[in-house]
Amino acid sequence: MSDSAKKYTIAVIPGDGIGKEVTPWAQKALEKAAEGVAEFDYENFDLGAERYLRDGAILPEEEEERIKKTDAILLGAVGDPRIKAGILERGLLLKLRFDLDQYVNLRPSKLYKGVTSPLANPGDIDFVVVREGTEGLYCGAGGAVRRGTPNEVATEVSINTAYGVERVVRYAFQLAMKRRKHVTLVHKKNVLVNAGDMWQRIVDKVAEEYPEVSHDYLHIDATTIFMVSNPSRFDVILTDNLFGDIITDEAGAVVGGVGYSASGCINASNEYPSMFEPIHGSAPDIAGQNKANPTAAILSAAMLLRHLGFDDAAAKIDAAVEADIEELGSATRSTDEVGRDILARM
Amino acid sequence: MSDSAKKYTIAVIPGDGIGKEVTPWAQKALEKAAEGVAEFDYENFDLGAERYLRDGAILPEEEEERIKKTDAILLGAVGDPRIKAGILERGLLLKLRFDLDQYVNLRPSKLYKGVTSPLANPGDIDFVVVREGTEGLYCGAGGAVRRGTPNEVATEVSINTAYGVERVVRYAFQLAMKRRKHVTLVHKKNVLVNAGDMWQRIVDKVAEEYPEVSHDYLHIDATTIFMVSNPSRFDVILTDNLFGDIITDEAGAVVGGVGYSASGCINASNEYPSMFEPIHGSAPDIAGQNKANPTAAILSAAMLLRHLGFDDAAAKIDAAVEADIEELGSATRSTDEVGRDILARM
Ligand SMILES: CC(C)[C@H](C(=O)O)[C@@H](O)C(=O)O
Ligand SMILES: CC(C)[C@H](C(=O)O)[C@@H](O)C(=O)O
Repeated sequence: MSDSAKKYTIAVIPGDGIGKEVTPWAQKALEKAAEGVAEFDYENFDLGAERYLRDGAILPEEEEERIKKTDAILLGAVGDPRIKAGILERGLLLKLRFDLDQYVNLRPSKLYKGVTSPLANPGDIDFVVVREGTEGLYCGAGGAVRRGTPNEVATEVSINTAYGVERVVRYAFQLAMKRRKHVTLVHKKNVLVNAGDMWQRIVDKVAEEYPEVSHDYLHIDATTIFMVSNPSRFDVILTDNLFGDIITDEAGAVVGGVGYSASGCINASNEYPSMFEPIHGSAPDIAGQNKANPTAAILSAAMLLRHLGFDDAAAKIDAAVEADIEELGSATRSTDEVGRDILARM
Repeated sequence: MSDSAKKYTIAVIPGDGIGKEVTPWAQKALEKAAEGVAEFDYENFDLGAERYLRDGAILPEEEEERIKKTDAILLGAVGDPRIKAGILERGLLLKLRFDLDQYVNLRPSKLYKGVTSPLANPGDIDFVVVREGTEGLYCGAGGAVRRGTPNEVATEVSINTAYGVERVVRYAFQLAMKRRKHVTLVHKKNVLVNAGDMWQRIVDKVAEEYPEVSHDYLHIDATTIFMVSNPSRFDVILTDNLFGDIITDEAGAVVGGVGYSASGCINASNEYPSMFEPIHGSAPDIAGQNKANPTAAILSAAMLLRHLGFDDAAAKIDAAVEADIEELGSATRSTDEVGRDILARM
């Protein structure tokens, strides 16, 4: 290792199920790609369903404070069917996204050569969804009265601020400048007129600063159609928290499954660490069988490197993954075989 | 016509663009299918973008009162790119859905023989989405402060009531009894915990009354994946207003395009007329060219007949459409040719 290698502390949250099997491969890819340019110290955090079932803890304050002091976070997957929906999501995943102000939820979708899309004519799919990560319907600003009675009323409130929207809009246009220079705003402004109108006005305003970037608008419902009928039309999709959640899963499906998709929850102002994870869940049905594909986790390591400024190191991982999938994507391999194969190409 | 034929008044709102070209075919199909069993008087309403651009009226109270007195509504399509998003949607379409308490938005999806799905292996697709139509984020209960400033805050509020949810849940289970007896609740209860929890509790409660109907739950994001990877798993999809909007468009895409999809906005308590329409829009780009496919509009006439209790008449239309698509679905035909071909088979 070179003396000039920069040092970083990475918080590692392997989580549950296959999260624990794929995360070590993300770390190995990180190490190998950054050899000579960066050095990593890892701090492991035992968080997720298994921890919660064991001692009731979800995200103790002291642990969150330690996470906040790291340079980046690698997350595996969190979840277990025994736990009621919402508890870990809101107590751990969303709490980190919100407390660490990870306002850009970045989700690339690419159809790799060697992967079979469920679409008959998928075309050349290569786009990125820039999903707002700290506002909208994810704020937890709802409530219920007369719960469990015939007169129950339950609300969910979407909160959207010019401050929060403008920073993610700007991020999307900057990203488009490095890509094919097109931004598609996705919303439902014909119904959600208050939030939709604000998003559209801010996009129009920021767009003036990027005259080379073209932009258009699609309703979320129409977007689900294009995602199936013509996904290659997209370059950068810019959208809010809920629509981003929905459209990235459909995107994952059309590029052949969430096994090839990673995501970054990014604090683009760098006040707090950003978090990188495969899009797939903890998959309890195949956990512990050395069956899970570590590719998405390895791709999340590339996103982490790119975020820290190591573009060349990130590109090494991306190239190795691309070559691996093209050659062996359809072969049945164990977690460790895929991991070893990808590392061998780096 | 038989003396015993029942008489109905149908409000016809052809609307804009291709709406005006396809609606006459829906009426002709209605007439022919119901010969001898029902007689229709039509009351035409000039509503939509063209009317609004001409005299500024969207849905005058007097006209809405007349619509309320009819037995059912046939709608073509409404919209024009010159009008700001939200004006006609909220002032006309959603106003009718809400004022006429059309709480069941019924959207069947079927992959007809002769239609090419964009999926490589679509399987046997035949499901119905039961979308709640009078609550959720569609209530218009949002607002904005400091509009246009860097401190703007815009909200959208989803309002959900046990009353509103239970009636649509019950409808879905009743519908499932006439089909393959499976209901899938679609929501995002791991994030929208208040509304999602209420939906789930009410589904679990109503399900006890229908022991023959099985039910499961999917998050909306996972649903967009299954819609592409395994759409034949669905029988009755039950969901809220916004998720229903999104998933039905994706469903329309996987069954080969919205040209074959009709929808009903149904007041299942029959206090007010229900409304039937093709799912497609006014398509200004092909309007006036006798090019639009009237199949979806004709299918909406079948839904109207079924709603009024004329199952046999409705089945005549469905069978004619099915045979027409199987034989000629891939041929290039004009609006009038398709209309005539379908009618000739009835
Ligand atoms: C687990 C859940 C809270 C989360 C979300 O809705 O954001 C997930 O679906 C995702 O997309 O990362
Ligand atoms: C036009 C719009 C208001 C409407 C909706 O969102 O319900 C449409 O998309 C639909 O699905 O009928």
